[in-house]
Amino acid sequence: MGKKRVKVGLVGAGTIGKGVVDLYKRNSVLINNKIDFEVTLEKVADRDQDRLQALGLEDKKLTTDAGDVLDDPEIDVVIELIGGIEPARGFIARALENGKYVVTANKDMMARHGLELIALARQKNLNLFYEASVGGGIPLIRPLKHNLVADRVSRVLGIVNGTTNYIFTHMAQDDLSLEEALSEAQRLGFAEADPTNDVEGLDAAYKLVIMANLVFGKKAEFDRVYIEGIRGVTYEDIAYAREIGYTIKLLAIGEDLPEGLALRVHPALVPLEHPLASVRNELNAVFIESEASRELMFYGPGAGPMPTAAAVWSDVVEAARCLHFNVANGVVEKELEETGFVPVEALEYRFYLRFLVEDRAGVFASLANAFADEGVSLDMIIQKRRVGDLAEVVLVTHEVKEEAFRRALGKITDISAIKPNPSIIRLLN
Amino acid sequence: MGKKRVKVGLVGAGTIGKGVVDLYKRNSVLINNKIDFEVTLEKVADRDQDRLQALGLEDKKLTTDAGDVLDDPEIDVVIELIGGIEPARGFIARALENGKYVVTANKDMMARHGLELIALARQKNLNLFYEASVGGGIPLIRPLKHNLVADRVSRVLGIVNGTTNYIFTHMAQDDLSLEEALSEAQRLGFAEADPTNDVEGLDAAYKLVIMANLVFGKKAEFDRVYIEGIRGVTYEDIAYAREIGYTIKLLAIGEDLPEGLALRVHPALVPLEHPLASVRNELNAVFIESEASRELMFYGPGAGPMPTAAAVWSDVVEAARCLHFNVANGVVEKELEETGFVPVEALEYRFYLRFLVEDRAGVFASLANAFADEGVSLDMIIQKRRVGDLAEVVLVTHEVKEEAFRRALGKITDISAIKPNPSIIRLLN
Repeated sequence: MGKKRVKVGLVGAGTIGKGVVDLYKRNSVLINNKIDFEVTLEKVADRDQDRLQALGLEDKKLTTDAGDVLDDPEIDVVIELIGGIEPARGFIARALENGKYVVTANKDMMARHGLELIALARQKNLNLFYEASVGGGIPLIRPLKHNLVADRVSRVLGIVNGTTNYIFTHMAQDDLSLEEALSEAQRLGFAEADPTNDVEGLDAAYKLVIMANLVFGKKAEFDRVYIEGIRGVTYEDIAYAREIGYTIKLLAIGEDLPEGLALRVHPALVPLEHPLASVRNELNAVFIESEASRELMFYGPGAGPMPTAAAVWSDVVEAARCLHFNVANGVVEKELEETGFVPVEALEYRFYLRFLVEDRAGVFASLANAFADEGVSLDMIIQKRRVGDLAEVVLVTHEVKEEAFRRALGKITDISAIKPNPSIIRLLN
Repeated sequence: MGKKRVKVGLVGAGTIGKGVVDLYKRNSVLINNKIDFEVTLEKVADRDQDRLQALGLEDKKLTTDAGDVLDDPEIDVVIELIGGIEPARGFIARALENGKYVVTANKDMMARHGLELIALARQKNLNLFYEASVGGGIPLIRPLKHNLVADRVSRVLGIVNGTTNYIFTHMAQDDLSLEEALSEAQRLGFAEADPTNDVEGLDAAYKLVIMANLVFGKKAEFDRVYIEGIRGVTYEDIAYAREIGYTIKLLAIGEDLPEGLALRVHPALVPLEHPLASVRNELNAVFIESEASRELMFYGPGAGPMPTAAAVWSDVVEAARCLHFNVANGVVEKELEETGFVPVEALEYRFYLRFLVEDRAGVFASLANAFADEGVSLDMIIQKRRVGDLAEVVLVTHEVKEEAFRRALGKITDISAIKPNPSIIRLLN
């Protein structure tokens, strides 16, 4: 009898770390009932004594020194949940050097240093698991890695930031401005006190890089992601979008083109009948377009202590399974290819454009000429509302290369009757 | 150098079998580029020479004798794609007895004999993979098995039959009768010439049993599934449903209750804002309610040669990985628990009820009394349309135990003014 024990240590007892401990306390029997070995949480490290005490574990399991976990020869698997680049990266490298499997939920660090840490793990015949780094509780990394092994992914579209999705949902639903919806999100805990990473699109870009590495098998780079946050989207844009059959979402888009990877994060008009349009509030979803399966979507909670903890423990069980079978690196994937990158200017989009204009003869002709000169043709024109003395115009273009559209835009903004700072939002094509 | 080769044999060269061969021809380089070993398709068996010839493989890889695959000591992994119970079950058992890993897409056989074959695989230190048996190309079995290991699933809701979902979608969209939509589905290849298994709900029930085994860890039994097909749903019901904010879907529902598993397949009114409501045409989705992750959905093509082939090859790669690492049974899950079953009569539902009634004094009072006697209270009453001399009445009840509702229904159908054969559809609660 006597099941083999796999000993787990945790570094970082913040909100997610506490969730990981709570889920263990609640479900360790359930987990161990499903498997033929036993996973036990042996030690938790955090610099903050109060956080440690709040976990409700025996004192002998608590330590303020991460080294007590990272260097303990008894620990088999280390969970890293401190977040940020350093010391997280150093801790993970140290755990791997010490022969331990590592599980992390750290998206910024994985986006910037994931490939080098995975390479270190390979070299040590170990593995690094990061299911919780994208999409929180949504089964995503493991299915992308294993289920799509025989398929060729052409595009990944993600609603991978809960804060901005919550903001857009409530701007639309409750007729709120972006600032009002953001305050509400902060009040309800769906946005942080400093929402920069979410609102500016950085969080979504981290997750895009991690997914692109996986689904395209090529080395995506964070610095090659075009990133545009949600600050430019107003309530009026959301209302016009709805009128023409779209909703606005912050999308992380990765595409494998002949010239290289095209990676970008920006708000986009999504057709109401697209499955991503039905992803509301703080929920996340990743939509995959592929050769064999054509369309797949993974939907669920993209954050939160309990969903994230469920993903972390599923990684721990996978690590434990490798250990149990003495299967060093249980994956044997090859190294990723180097790749070029396609800048956003070279991509084709349809554009939504909203601006105010002085209502006098000849203005529309100048506008139309500026577009025509750059080969930009219009699919939709709406002019029906006045704002003070000015007319509000909404245009939707046909598909056009972004650089041509930008040139046309430059000419248009030179027309004195057209007021500066138009709203410009790409359409999902 | 020289990568280790894992040799694969296929039994069954019908539509799906041909898809599996086609995807191999197209993507074997892609697959083998992702892994540190090599997967090769060595032999295909089918009794039909024409099917074999249509594969476009060298003659030496083709055989009309399944034994040439099942008993060949060179073959490491057998893919079974002949479908149905026998000889499929016997073939799988023979392959396992011969020490081979097995991959299957056979849902009826897995629903009826899956547990005994998995037990045989365990006993032989092998494994049986069946990702393609539910949800076609949707990553489902592997995520349910591995990603939810630390979570507690309370309910699974599946749109797992593409034919019936296509029929309902087009009844709603094109104002068709069930028969018209079925003919269209047959013409377009989304329904078989004999659609019984789909239309009567059997196909969905097979898939429900396979999922229930996995997510609840308990022995689900096909014969304990309550099954009601889609024949009773009319275009009028779909139109009324839409009017009150619902769409109609054939749902496979599994629930883990204190008294046992409640397993049923029936049409249901699904609120339009529920993610399952946006699953259209022949697409499938499985929605999971759980303790930690709360709500998850897996969406994609539930059938078709290419999506199914992608799932089959992902299983082959998993089998090959086990072989490569010499990890006999790569899963080490425990055996499932025995369980009780809860009959549909004991469940609580809200009910939609549509019937024709003679429009005379006192009828509604008799109806109301019959409901009141059984404690059935009404949430919604619509009477606005006449059909000839008769009034059409639509009722939606509050939540009530099904047996009480059925008793009330018995009394109502005794009222002579109420015409027989009302439409009765449960609501998703």
